Amino acid sequence: MSGSKCARLSGARVQQLLDSVDSVLFDCDGVIWRGDQAIPGAAQVINLLKEKGKRVFFVTNNSSKTRKMYAEKMSVLGFDVNEEEVFGTAYCSAVYLKTVCKLEGKVYLMGSDAMRQELEAVGIQQTGVGPDHISGKQTDWANVPLDPEVKAVLVGFDAHFSYMKLNRAFQYLTQQDCLFVGTNRDTRLPLEGGKAVPGTGCLLLAVETAAQRQAQTVGKPNHFMFDCVASKFGVDPDRCLMVGDRLDTDILLGSNCGLKTLLTLTGVSTVAEAEAHQQSGCAERQGMVPDFYVESIADLLPALQG
Amino acid sequence: MSGSKCARLSGARVQQLLDSVDSVLFDCDGVIWRGDQAIPGAAQVINLLKEKGKRVFFVTNNSSKTRKMYAEKMSVLGFDVNEEEVFGTAYCSAVYLKTVCKLEGKVYLMGSDAMRQELEAVGIQQTGVGPDHISGKQTDWANVPLDPEVKAVLVGFDAHFSYMKLNRAFQYLTQQDCLFVGTNRDTRLPLEGGKAVPGTGCLLLAVETAAQRQAQTVGKPNHFMFDCVASKFGVDPDRCLMVGDRLDTDILLGSNCGLKTLLTLTGVSTVAEAEAHQQSGCAERQGMVPDFYVESIADLLPALQG
Repeated sequence: MSGSKCARLSGARVQQLLDSVDSVLFDCDGVIWRGDQAIPGAAQVINLLKEKGKRVFFVTNNSSKTRKMYAEKMSVLGFDVNEEEVFGTAYCSAVYLKTVCKLEGKVYLMGSDAMRQELEAVGIQQTGVGPDHISGKQTDWANVPLDPEVKAVLVGFDAHFSYMKLNRAFQYLTQQDCLFVGTNRDTRLPLEGGKAVPGTGCLLLAVETAAQRQAQTVGKPNHFMFDCVASKFGVDPDRCLMVGDRLDTDILLGSNCGLKTLLTLTGVSTVAEAEAHQQSGCAERQGMVPDFYVESIADLLPALQG
Repeated sequence: MSGSKCARLSGARVQQLLDSVDSVLFDCDGVIWRGDQAIPGAAQVINLLKEKGKRVFFVTNNSSKTRKMYAEKMSVLGFDVNEEEVFGTAYCSAVYLKTVCKLEGKVYLMGSDAMRQELEAVGIQQTGVGPDHISGKQTDWANVPLDPEVKAVLVGFDAHFSYMKLNRAFQYLTQQDCLFVGTNRDTRLPLEGGKAVPGTGCLLLAVETAAQRQAQTVGKPNHFMFDCVASKFGVDPDRCLMVGDRLDTDILLGSNCGLKTLLTLTGVSTVAEAEAHQQSGCAERQGMVPDFYVESIADLLPALQG
């Protein structure tokens, strides 16, 4: 696959690219769906790739679902996927705390019930999930009772995020031996029709700012997500394609791990942004330049149907 | 007052400094009190300064109280102060929106009831104060009903801060003509016994990150707080002393406005931090080097009693 980067993928090059890989990693939000609506043609693309013998995996920074919940959503939308093929940050964060941090103790969880389920599936107990409203006054907040078994704070997407939760995470993190892990730094969650809601990155930054500590993040562009896939399925980076809609997470993950990279324009990033990175002359930004781009992953269909 | 900066203030120099000023500006948290406890001797210092004919003002980034509430707290703690002498960010933000922004419309307020009161006192209506819990799902959040009269988002300290409030502020701020103002960027609120709780800076950063916009902040080190005092009381910067416990807000405000500056060590910053700024050789950091420091403002007492 010689030639310059950030090339529009079409015609014979599609087949050429597909022939050069055995595995394809897809991001989810903005790539195969937006909110609850599948990108037109996405299910066909996934199913045909599998029929042609490619291994397909899903790698998402979204921490709001368990692997099982993702597989169920995909099934409803017509994707032929089983949960072993899905790597979300709810699952990967639990694996990270268990295998990399070798956590012995509980987690203070700022996150969803799905995160609680994935933690418990690997044998980690949590405290914190659900609403936590304010009461009392400042001195009460500063002296809020802490669970002495908590040895880590994990921050993911939490619709119940509140000042009291921010304060509780902060009080745990004043203990210097308390681990600090975040699922991801995405600042917005894109939805249908150009709408968006604030992402986990906003919540994580609030906690980091209070604690004056930086979290280790599990999600893309950290290579841990790819390591999870590779260690379980023996993926050869050289024969693997990463498909995503974000330059700073998906494409950078691909570059960080030596994968081929394909940007799709159905989500957050634009070709102009990719070209700006390419022309910046800044070494750090070259990792955010994809090998190829398509308007939509449906652009892969002709080659797969041919 | 010649000589090097960041000198310990004691002996005859105290009287010399006091003779050189007509007005003294005090920060509150960490300077005259910590939480609900007055710094020992602080009330005597304030009262004696006034008896000696100095004009005394209070300039605090804390947005949780109205001027009236501050005056009442001070009275309970033995300070002889009236509310006209208190400049908190609840009051100053209202003045800022009214006089600098010339706001015509409502404010979406992420803040306290005290902020609501100060806004209403200058004739600005608000929406948003109080709890705002999550309900529905992502598409509901993205399409949350917005008040068409809202023309500004104001972020201050809000114990009811929640994901829904973050989302609501974000949705307002996607309207490019919506003003964006924050009370201050203090990341922690220090309390008694070395304890602290997360400050407004954490909340503001979360909103800024979601909105990908930067707020205009009213509080120290922005000179607006001093302008409020100076325009009302005709203060000569050259004959004014700023006393505070934070280098990055109080001392920097003083430097920004050409005031004499005194660091007190009963709060957040240390002499070592001040000396590090001084020795950095970095022009930007020189504004955070105080002229003098004391252990406590009680160190001013002997000169005042003499």
